Amino acid sequence: MITTHPFDDDKLREECGVFGVAGAVDAAAMVALGLHALQHRGQEAAGISSFDGRHFHNHKALGHVAGNFDSEDTMRQLKGDWAIGHVRYATTGETALRNVQPLYAELSSGGFAIAHNGNISNAMKLRHDLVRTGSIFQSTSDTETIIHLVATSRYRTLLDKFIDALKQVEGAYSLICLTDSGMIACRDPLGIRPLVMGRIGDAVIFASETVALDIVGAEFERSVEPGELIVVSGGEIRSHRPFAEKQSRPCIFEHVYFSRPDSIVDGSSVYSVRKAIGAQLAMENPVEADLVVPVPDSGTPAAIGYAQQSGLPFELGIIRSHYVGRTFIQPGDGVRHLGVKLKHNANKPLIAGKRLVLIDDSIVRGTTSLKIVQMMRDAGAAEVHMRIASPPTMHSCFYGVDTPERSKLLAAQKSIEEMRQFIQADSLSFLSIDGLYRALGEASRNDDRPRYCDACFTGDYPTTLTDLAERDQPNQLTLLAERVAG
Amino acid sequence: MITTHPFDDDKLREECGVFGVAGAVDAAAMVALGLHALQHRGQEAAGISSFDGRHFHNHKALGHVAGNFDSEDTMRQLKGDWAIGHVRYATTGETALRNVQPLYAELSSGGFAIAHNGNISNAMKLRHDLVRTGSIFQSTSDTETIIHLVATSRYRTLLDKFIDALKQVEGAYSLICLTDSGMIACRDPLGIRPLVMGRIGDAVIFASETVALDIVGAEFERSVEPGELIVVSGGEIRSHRPFAEKQSRPCIFEHVYFSRPDSIVDGSSVYSVRKAIGAQLAMENPVEADLVVPVPDSGTPAAIGYAQQSGLPFELGIIRSHYVGRTFIQPGDGVRHLGVKLKHNANKPLIAGKRLVLIDDSIVRGTTSLKIVQMMRDAGAAEVHMRIASPPTMHSCFYGVDTPERSKLLAAQKSIEEMRQFIQADSLSFLSIDGLYRALGEASRNDDRPRYCDACFTGDYPTTLTDLAERDQPNQLTLLAERVAG
Amino acid sequence: MITTHPFDDDKLREECGVFGVAGAVDAAAMVALGLHALQHRGQEAAGISSFDGRHFHNHKALGHVAGNFDSEDTMRQLKGDWAIGHVRYATTGETALRNVQPLYAELSSGGFAIAHNGNISNAMKLRHDLVRTGSIFQSTSDTETIIHLVATSRYRTLLDKFIDALKQVEGAYSLICLTDSGMIACRDPLGIRPLVMGRIGDAVIFASETVALDIVGAEFERSVEPGELIVVSGGEIRSHRPFAEKQSRPCIFEHVYFSRPDSIVDGSSVYSVRKAIGAQLAMENPVEADLVVPVPDSGTPAAIGYAQQSGLPFELGIIRSHYVGRTFIQPGDGVRHLGVKLKHNANKPLIAGKRLVLIDDSIVRGTTSLKIVQMMRDAGAAEVHMRIASPPTMHSCFYGVDTPERSKLLAAQKSIEEMRQFIQADSLSFLSIDGLYRALGEASRNDDRPRYCDACFTGDYPTTLTDLAERDQPNQLTLLAERVAG
Amino acid sequence: MITTHPFDDDKLREECGVFGVAGAVDAAAMVALGLHALQHRGQEAAGISSFDGRHFHNHKALGHVAGNFDSEDTMRQLKGDWAIGHVRYATTGETALRNVQPLYAELSSGGFAIAHNGNISNAMKLRHDLVRTGSIFQSTSDTETIIHLVATSRYRTLLDKFIDALKQVEGAYSLICLTDSGMIACRDPLGIRPLVMGRIGDAVIFASETVALDIVGAEFERSVEPGELIVVSGGEIRSHRPFAEKQSRPCIFEHVYFSRPDSIVDGSSVYSVRKAIGAQLAMENPVEADLVVPVPDSGTPAAIGYAQQSGLPFELGIIRSHYVGRTFIQPGDGVRHLGVKLKHNANKPLIAGKRLVLIDDSIVRGTTSLKIVQMMRDAGAAEVHMRIASPPTMHSCFYGVDTPERSKLLAAQKSIEEMRQFIQADSLSFLSIDGLYRALGEASRNDDRPRYCDACFTGDYPTTLTDLAERDQPNQLTLLAERVAG
Repeated sequence: MITTHPFDDDKLREECGVFGVAGAVDAAAMVALGLHALQHRGQEAAGISSFDGRHFHNHKALGHVAGNFDSEDTMRQLKGDWAIGHVRYATTGETALRNVQPLYAELSSGGFAIAHNGNISNAMKLRHDLVRTGSIFQSTSDTETIIHLVATSRYRTLLDKFIDALKQVEGAYSLICLTDSGMIACRDPLGIRPLVMGRIGDAVIFASETVALDIVGAEFERSVEPGELIVVSGGEIRSHRPFAEKQSRPCIFEHVYFSRPDSIVDGSSVYSVRKAIGAQLAMENPVEADLVVPVPDSGTPAAIGYAQQSGLPFELGIIRSHYVGRTFIQPGDGVRHLGVKLKHNANKPLIAGKRLVLIDDSIVRGTTSLKIVQMMRDAGAAEVHMRIASPPTMHSCFYGVDTPERSKLLAAQKSIEEMRQFIQADSLSFLSIDGLYRALGEASRNDDRPRYCDACFTGDYPTTLTDLAERDQPNQLTLLAERVAG
Repeated sequence: MITTHPFDDDKLREECGVFGVAGAVDAAAMVALGLHALQHRGQEAAGISSFDGRHFHNHKALGHVAGNFDSEDTMRQLKGDWAIGHVRYATTGETALRNVQPLYAELSSGGFAIAHNGNISNAMKLRHDLVRTGSIFQSTSDTETIIHLVATSRYRTLLDKFIDALKQVEGAYSLICLTDSGMIACRDPLGIRPLVMGRIGDAVIFASETVALDIVGAEFERSVEPGELIVVSGGEIRSHRPFAEKQSRPCIFEHVYFSRPDSIVDGSSVYSVRKAIGAQLAMENPVEADLVVPVPDSGTPAAIGYAQQSGLPFELGIIRSHYVGRTFIQPGDGVRHLGVKLKHNANKPLIAGKRLVLIDDSIVRGTTSLKIVQMMRDAGAAEVHMRIASPPTMHSCFYGVDTPERSKLLAAQKSIEEMRQFIQADSLSFLSIDGLYRALGEASRNDDRPRYCDACFTGDYPTTLTDLAERDQPNQLTLLAERVAG
Repeated sequence: MITTHPFDDDKLREECGVFGVAGAVDAAAMVALGLHALQHRGQEAAGISSFDGRHFHNHKALGHVAGNFDSEDTMRQLKGDWAIGHVRYATTGETALRNVQPLYAELSSGGFAIAHNGNISNAMKLRHDLVRTGSIFQSTSDTETIIHLVATSRYRTLLDKFIDALKQVEGAYSLICLTDSGMIACRDPLGIRPLVMGRIGDAVIFASETVALDIVGAEFERSVEPGELIVVSGGEIRSHRPFAEKQSRPCIFEHVYFSRPDSIVDGSSVYSVRKAIGAQLAMENPVEADLVVPVPDSGTPAAIGYAQQSGLPFELGIIRSHYVGRTFIQPGDGVRHLGVKLKHNANKPLIAGKRLVLIDDSIVRGTTSLKIVQMMRDAGAAEVHMRIASPPTMHSCFYGVDTPERSKLLAAQKSIEEMRQFIQADSLSFLSIDGLYRALGEASRNDDRPRYCDACFTGDYPTTLTDLAERDQPNQLTLLAERVAG
Repeated sequence: MITTHPFDDDKLREECGVFGVAGAVDAAAMVALGLHALQHRGQEAAGISSFDGRHFHNHKALGHVAGNFDSEDTMRQLKGDWAIGHVRYATTGETALRNVQPLYAELSSGGFAIAHNGNISNAMKLRHDLVRTGSIFQSTSDTETIIHLVATSRYRTLLDKFIDALKQVEGAYSLICLTDSGMIACRDPLGIRPLVMGRIGDAVIFASETVALDIVGAEFERSVEPGELIVVSGGEIRSHRPFAEKQSRPCIFEHVYFSRPDSIVDGSSVYSVRKAIGAQLAMENPVEADLVVPVPDSGTPAAIGYAQQSGLPFELGIIRSHYVGRTFIQPGDGVRHLGVKLKHNANKPLIAGKRLVLIDDSIVRGTTSLKIVQMMRDAGAAEVHMRIASPPTMHSCFYGVDTPERSKLLAAQKSIEEMRQFIQADSLSFLSIDGLYRALGEASRNDDRPRYCDACFTGDYPTTLTDLAERDQPNQLTLLAERVAG
């Protein structure tokens, strides 16, 4: 099983990316490319479902898109002009294949495939009720709940059944569904997770990020709006608004780390926002130093912004390996900080004797920051000043991002000065929450009506969290949760 | 079979990296780490041989070091305190495993393993003579010639046999050999390929580059000198000089592209040299523009140097994917320039309407340059000025670098203006050969006694090329070459 | 994928074997052994489900039991004292894994695993109705119908739900189910497929055949009766009779070919019955000849019976290979009858010049018989008299046996004389239907109340065949069948 | 690696089979078939070398012929009208692939591939001398010695070099060699291992046994004579006799167990000889009993002979499984004699209360015999009389058969009465050595000039055993043997 992934283990991890093609020759091949461009959103499993006018075809695999969806044999099976795909983080082990999306079911209306980015925060409660009336679940995925709600809905048309289902779920969802009469894309009322729409020729494309449009040569048209449901069918595109209007709250962390720098998210260039974040950081937290050094690659745009704002030279003080392996046998005590060295190496001749400003996007557990600071000192750095391109990450995410428990979040446990001592830097500063909103073009955070979901920084969750609430009082639901997790 | 490799197909490719550990617990585990750090020197196969005081242990595999040398099972077999390893490019296909190094033989003196970076330019001629007297070759590798010369030498001691063998070969070689009485490292009289020596505790380390010392925590001691042969045995290190003294000619392309920027090669920081190259390039070939954009990652240090010298801002106009797959099914004509898009994407919002200076390290066939220029134009660049951080690559290498035939080298076929038209840039300039020597600290190239092997730029080959000469007149040797290649 | 199977492709194939262990240490390991002994009943896939008092564990694989259920890793996962297993023929291809049994579902009552030998002849009709009310099927297996009927039953206890489900299904079923409160075994009212019960210590064992009891060292206790449902739970064994009493009709072909000769089926030793069949055949169809030669191995017991009755010597005129591979590249026209030669070879020195009586158990398509007769003639046989140890196979089976369509059944298309010409034998005779009943201890077939299901010989099907009937008039069910098959 | 092999672990094992095709379209495909028919002679590895007039092609694999040589991809590579192949027992582990034959070398005369059945009894001594003068061995196989002797011979033609090599080796060898000018087959002067010659059209075939001729449809022409060397080249077949004439001594155990019953070995039908052995056994060792039961499958022909001679009925009292797996997890103490039960099951209803004569071909360690006798008693047998179709196996073989050390041979350690007690039979008898010669058509063994090599029964070895002699006095050769074995 491939599990090389270059991103640091000590990061928050986006849990999914979705991509759909409505009405293009070799749709599945385009989906494979789109998923490849979204690979950073989920590196442990991938799947594609296609529809050829008569039959659905599905292929799922643990591992990367490249290697699983690049053989002619595989792609030839995924026939048809309509296809959707999904990349995700999955628990390891073979049996987890059943959780890999798109999930597919034969409903009375015909085939139905669904790809989901986000997390349903009342999935356990709904599942419990559905099993009691005879529904049989195939997976432990929250997404399957939506399918059973559709299957057992008393409404007549598939669209009505689907809307009926969505009205019962709570949380974050950007969905792309494939049926035998068309494609449905929709985004939850708060628009927590991103979803964009593009065009290539007559075909309509949906994707988590615009980079996935770029790779297939599609034009970016617009974001799917929070609460919008778009149906592509019979040569027409119709937009529906089945939910009551609300102030939207897209995820702010997409701009900080999740999305690729070459994407446009909810109207902003991610690269430009990150450079602006770096510039804000330089204004808020200046330091006398010789070099600005990014922790590659996620800290690089902010470091360029910091360097331009501060006038200090931008230099590659840390060189990143292109070949990453997670586990090597460690030969005794002779080798220190091995984990981090497999990915990064200090550029010694550059660093020796210099005062460095290290720029990283965020601190989660802090273990990697500690190792990188030590690596800089081992290479002879005179001073190491750490600057973080976001506020302290203090709260867990329940909307489709893999966060450690609060007890593992360094910022939830320690003051900034304690954090500095922990990572052994000469100084440590974070961007302020208002600074972050400023980099995004706001004057500051409007605490009454914040424009983004920033719960990981503020603890201000924009939805109720049913399952979480019920988990705290031991009952049948808890037992179910345990069984499902088992 | 793994074949992901992030480096561009349109580059010259170093053909090997070598690493050896003399006298450390878990020597093979250290070798695996060292090879991982040298992975960029050879990505298609890897091997390790170890010696535990009684037995030799060998493991070879096609593919990367990570994935083949990180399981406990594999590493447990590679017992002993002495080990050497090798990474290489190999022709694909299962049978090629016999060509993967270290090569191993049971000689009358005992076991003998050899790892070679370089190329023997009279290997065919020697092989022909050896087969005639009864030697049986196991591989089609030029390196095996050395083993048979040792096995059949009339000298008495292994060291004398080994020197006897080396005196008959011609070309480039940095060698690390493991015997049951110690380790031998040596570098050909011209020192064409690099080789360094380090220490960790009591152990001696040999490696192609210093980054491999860094990863195991070893101290860099010095380069192995051209023409030097070092024997580590019985707790002693002895240096021998079996060859007549000559002006050394280390490979200049190590500084341009092959070596990692965080390595120190023959006394110089590669990163600093590349920045100096970028600065030279800015002085020799200035241009009015808005942004300096590196072709990632090999063009990045030169682009930083260019930006600092010219005062233009350094920006990430091309974003590189961390997930690389060689082949995807291409969906029709809708998708243009797919190959390059799997690896790179234009940062559109940054580039649109801007005049760019694109910095790349070299141009080989020119096919990638063409695609990148087009990608910049598709993203809306106003002007694209290509600056190359080395002189035009006009000649093949016969010293262990995989170069296309001259007919495929763009610079061997076209003038610079014709090259510009081919890649469709607004302007194109190369660094001068003297500029390159200046970046390396010389006043200019001394044509009578050049300090480097720069044959790829100048055609000035520092050794005779026996096999090449004989290949031009059809005879038995030609037939042999054909059979061996088959 | 392993596909070696020594049984002739030109045979009817039993589609399943089942095995269950209630209350023994390492239950899954016993199930693996039991399934190995039942491997002849289904060679293309196998699965085991176990229950450890808290959790269910499942493992399924394409291929043989040996190779898939003999590793410590696999077996360690299948924890618990309760386990059931299944072997089956499956359509090839990876996706078919979802059809491999035991099927498992989380019902509101808890986990439920089911292993089924037989075929539900109204499964399509039931499936259609279930999907309409919101049930989502995971497989294309008829067995899954039973699970959904249980899940959606309005009865309160699991046992009542299960009986409610069985009363709606029609056809052949020997079932073993594992729940978190015990094991349920049952056999359809006609007892078409076999099922036996054994004991080892305090544990109860259920199995398709007694040979599976032998391999684990269990004592054979009795057959599960037609229409009987046995529940093992809480240290007790209870027998239920939920169905109206009927004359039972166990499958007669189990005695002719399916069951192993060392099994006891519904009270009779299969080996003895086959010898008696051979003796009957010799009485009904004597011939002047030199040798009695079995077509190995299925014709051997009948050949011994024929030889003993006729006084002719029993000799191995055909030697069977122990190493079977399905496909070899066929080298031109030089090699005749290759398919059959991979499995059998004529014992030339024995056969040359002799008059042979060849004994085989049945003729399906006749293609193998033709090749064997020719092989005998090529080896120099003077005369070849074919004697078949059952009546002509003229009708398809709908009760869990893989039969070709009638148009492919030689006996459905040709008279006996035409069949003789087709296989090019000097004479051909079949056992009479009454002779077959006589070998089973009856005076003759009682046409009003036949003791066995002998539909393959007589066309007298003991149940209605709902799906078959509906398939003949194009409607929604047909479309469903097509979609499911796709 | 799958290595299911139905033959009992408690048997002597022939170590090789060879097959060659000279001058037929798709030669390699014919070799694959021939090797499949010889699979019983070596089940752990197989290889084929072919020659297409210009190039040699080789493919080797661990495992059976079926599965490794039945894919179109593999076979398409093995181009040419000339091909040889080999099946063998190999020590497990990946590296052992280098020992899999045919061995191939590029000599000065061109390509040379060799397949060997037998064992060179002075291989160590020769190897030692060759390494001292510079030969490098690729494998630990005794066969490679022959290649190096050919490569370093001072004779001029390849044929003279080959004969020069053979005159230096001692022991047993049936060889088939492929060169770029033809095929050479030869058999050692004593003819210890078998080798036959056949024809199909214009092509010449060589094979270890005639069954391999049958499978490709070739006509058996004659045995290659002991000491004969046949060259097929340029449309001609020439027989050479390079050795001094000697009384031949072919292996007698080929008739007892190694060869397939449908083969003709040195002029005799193996099946007929085994039946004659059974008849001799009945005459020498009669017993009052109810049934004659073969230990399948190797005891079957002798059991038929015993039954016919004694008048007792031949019955299948032991049923053999067609599905064999080597290792199953053993569930506690509940399961007795599991190893043997995976392969055999008692036919209880037949055996209960009966007096049995069990017929087996030989006893090696006796462990299986013990388990089978106990299985018969557990099934209710009244008496168990064991009759062995050969004399006691008391000595190791050094001519290409895998025998345990003498200390493991039951007959080398115990008297017949002690053996009876060990296997717990009611009586035990062996065929006499004279009885064995009588079954082969001799009056008795001529002790002065025995017609067969019967060293395993008599200890009368027909050649000197150089390596064995030297192994007893510690010296350099011993060290070499140790290193090679490591």
